[in-house]
Amino acid sequence: MPILVMKFGGTSVATLDRIRRAAKRVGREVANGYDVIVIVSAMAGETNKLVGYVDETSPLYDAREYDAVVSSGENVTAGLMALTLQEMDVPARSWQGWQVPLKTNAAHAAARIMEIPTDNIMAKFGEGMKVAVVAGFQGVSPEGRITTLGRGGSDTTAVAFAAAFGAERCDIYTDVDGVYTTDPRICEKARKLEKIAFEEMLELASLGAKVLQTRSVELAMRFKVRLRVLSSFEDNDEHAGTLVCDEEDIVEQNAVAGVAYSRDEAKMTLVSVADKPGIAAAIFGPLADAGVNVDMIVQNISEEGRTDMTFSCPTNQVARARQAMEGAKDRGEIEYNDLIADTDVCKVSIVGIGMRSHAGVAAKMFAALRDEGINIRVITTSEIKVSVLIDRKYMELAVQALHDTFELEKTA
Amino acid sequence: MPILVMKFGGTSVATLDRIRRAAKRVGREVANGYDVIVIVSAMAGETNKLVGYVDETSPLYDAREYDAVVSSGENVTAGLMALTLQEMDVPARSWQGWQVPLKTNAAHAAARIMEIPTDNIMAKFGEGMKVAVVAGFQGVSPEGRITTLGRGGSDTTAVAFAAAFGAERCDIYTDVDGVYTTDPRICEKARKLEKIAFEEMLELASLGAKVLQTRSVELAMRFKVRLRVLSSFEDNDEHAGTLVCDEEDIVEQNAVAGVAYSRDEAKMTLVSVADKPGIAAAIFGPLADAGVNVDMIVQNISEEGRTDMTFSCPTNQVARARQAMEGAKDRGEIEYNDLIADTDVCKVSIVGIGMRSHAGVAAKMFAALRDEGINIRVITTSEIKVSVLIDRKYMELAVQALHDTFELEKTA
Repeated sequence: MPILVMKFGGTSVATLDRIRRAAKRVGREVANGYDVIVIVSAMAGETNKLVGYVDETSPLYDAREYDAVVSSGENVTAGLMALTLQEMDVPARSWQGWQVPLKTNAAHAAARIMEIPTDNIMAKFGEGMKVAVVAGFQGVSPEGRITTLGRGGSDTTAVAFAAAFGAERCDIYTDVDGVYTTDPRICEKARKLEKIAFEEMLELASLGAKVLQTRSVELAMRFKVRLRVLSSFEDNDEHAGTLVCDEEDIVEQNAVAGVAYSRDEAKMTLVSVADKPGIAAAIFGPLADAGVNVDMIVQNISEEGRTDMTFSCPTNQVARARQAMEGAKDRGEIEYNDLIADTDVCKVSIVGIGMRSHAGVAAKMFAALRDEGINIRVITTSEIKVSVLIDRKYMELAVQALHDTFELEKTA
Repeated sequence: MPILVMKFGGTSVATLDRIRRAAKRVGREVANGYDVIVIVSAMAGETNKLVGYVDETSPLYDAREYDAVVSSGENVTAGLMALTLQEMDVPARSWQGWQVPLKTNAAHAAARIMEIPTDNIMAKFGEGMKVAVVAGFQGVSPEGRITTLGRGGSDTTAVAFAAAFGAERCDIYTDVDGVYTTDPRICEKARKLEKIAFEEMLELASLGAKVLQTRSVELAMRFKVRLRVLSSFEDNDEHAGTLVCDEEDIVEQNAVAGVAYSRDEAKMTLVSVADKPGIAAAIFGPLADAGVNVDMIVQNISEEGRTDMTFSCPTNQVARARQAMEGAKDRGEIEYNDLIADTDVCKVSIVGIGMRSHAGVAAKMFAALRDEGINIRVITTSEIKVSVLIDRKYMELAVQALHDTFELEKTA
C-alpha cells in the first residue's frame, strides 16, 4: 500500500469534535487505498499551559524536565485520535515518540532527529492496521529521556516520517488553506499558490510566513518529500492547498513567487568604527557568541580610517547585541563612537526561483519602492531573494506596491 | 543512605503552590538524611478530565489507548515536582513508568506490577541525586505499551517502590490526617489511630474506608512495608498520621479497632429456589461469569425442597446480576419463583485483630444493635471482622452505637 503522512496542528485537534472531523479526513484517505501515518499536535492551548507551568515553577529550568512536561499534550491527542478512528471502524493505534522510537540527539527543547526505525509500524501495517497515530514534536534521547523538537516541531516530525517511510506525500492540515503570494490580511489581491518550490518556501518560512516550520521545509527539500499545506476547516478537492515541491514540478514560473515581510527586525548601527583588518570578525564574533542572530549587514565606504557598520537582528536581541558590543569595546577589541538601535523598521522581501533566469528583478523592486517615496535602509540579496529594510510605517504600502509591480495576482 | 518513599495524591499536588509545599516536605526528609523516592498523582481533576475525553470519544474504548491518554497527567506532575525540587537546590529528576521501567502485565486499565528494576535509580542515587520523582499509576506492558494500575493506583506504585527498594517507610500524603476508628463525619467521637495492623487496614479499605487503595495494603502486608498515612495540609510531628504495620508492632490492642460502613450494597433474594445438590454453584457460577462481586451469602433452611437464597453485591451490579440469574433460569440451570432486589440497605462492620483473642465480640455487636431496635438482614464474619446488612436508615445510628459499645474513643 502507498503511504500517506497527514499532520494536524493544534487548532485542527482543539476539541473532540475537531478530532472527529480530522479523523474523517483520515478515513477518506484510507478508503482511497493509503496506509496513513497521522502526526498530531497537542490540543490548542495545552502546550502553552504546560510551558506556563514550567516557567512559573522554575525560571532557569532543566530542559530535560521541561521536555518531560510539555510533551504530554501530544500523547493525549494521539490516544484520542486512535480511539476516534477505531470508533469509525478504522484499525488504528497510537505511538508516543519513545515507542516508535523516534531517536534524537540530547539537545533538549530543540532536539534534532537522528533516526526513525520503520520496522515496528510497518509490521503493524502488515497485520492490517490502517493508521498509525504518532504524537508529534517529541522523541527520545540516547539516554532514554524524552526530548522535544522545539515549537512547531510537529511539522518536522511529519516530514521526517514521510522521508523515513517513503510516503507518497505529506499533507499538513492547518488553519489556512495554503501558501499565498503575500499575507491576505495586508494585501487583498493576494493569491493562493497552487505550487511553490522548496527553495521559495524555505525563504518565505524563514522570512516570517508562519505556515510551515523552517526546519520541516529544509528536511522536505533534502529528502524530496512532496509537502502539501491545506485547511482542516474546508472541503478540499484535488486542487486544494499548496503543494511544496521540486522546482522541476512547476512548469510555468513567475519571476517572483511571493512577497514576505517581518516586523521583528531591529537595525543597529555602530557609528565611526575604526576600520582595520579583521574588524568584521571583531564585531560579529562576539555577537555570534552572545547568540545574536545577525541577518543583514552593510558597511559604508571607509573615510579617513573610520566607517559605519549597520546590521539587523530580531527585536528581542537588541539588548544582548548592545551588551556584546560594549563588552568588546571595553576589552579594546573594537572602537566606535556610538551604537544606535532603531526598532522602528521592518523587512520586506521578494522571493522567487525565477529570479535566477530573469534579469533586473532587484532593480524593478528598488524602482517600485522609489516611486512610492520609500527609502531603503539596508539591502541583502540571495540567488532567489531580495530583502530590504525600510521604515516600519511603509510596510503595508511596500508589500502592496511590490505585489502590483510583479503582477502576483496573475498566474504565470 | 536509608531510602524513604513519599507519595502525594491529587489534592496534594493540585496547584503549583501545593507542589511547592509538598517539595518542602521532601526537602526536609532529604535534610534528615534520606534518599527519597517521590510518587506523584496527576493534579486533582486532570485524570477525570482525560477519562471524560475518552468516554466521550468512544463508549467501548480500547483500554490500551485509554491508558496512553489517562497516564499523561502524572507525567506533568512528575516533571514539575522535579523542577520545583531543583529550584530548592535539591538534586532531583523525574521518571515516567516506562523509563524505570515499571513492568506490568498487559491487563490494561487494571494492570498488575510484575517487576521494578532498581539499578537505574540506585545508580543516580550513587551519583548524588537525592530525589527520584516517579509518575504514579502507570507502567509498561511486555509489548512496550503504557499500562495503568486502576484508579488509586499511585498508592500501589508507592508501596511497590518501597518494597523493591527496601525503603524504611512509605509515607502516603493525603487530604486526611490518618485512619480513624470510624468516619468522623458520622460519629464525632471518632478517634485517630496511631497504629493499625495491616490485616485491619485491609478489611477497612475493602469495606469502603477510602484512605488507601486495597491493593496497596495487600502489597504492604505481603512485603512488610511500613506504611504511614498523613496529611499534606498540616504540620506533622513524629506522632502524626497513622502507621499501618505488623500486628507485633502494636503493643496494646482493643478487641475492635474500627467501625466501617458502606452504602454501596444491594441485597438480592432468590425466592423459593429448588434446592438440589450443586444449586450454589449453579447460582454463583453465572454471577461470577457476569463479573458480579458477590459479598455476603445467606441460605435459609430448606423446606419441602425449596429454599430462599440471599446475597449482596454492589448497587451498580444489580442489573447485571438479574440478567445473569434470568439467563440461568431460561437455560433451565436454576428454578426460582421471584428475584427481589433491595437497594435500601447498607453494610456496617466491626474490624479488629483483637477479636481473635477476645470471645463474644460478635454477640456484643448483635446485642448493641438489638438494643437500638435495628434488624439484621444478613451476617458475615471473618477471623477479624463481623459485617451485618441492615436497613439504610439505621446506618449512622448503628455506627455510633457500635463505637460506644466497644469504647473506641478510648485508647487501649
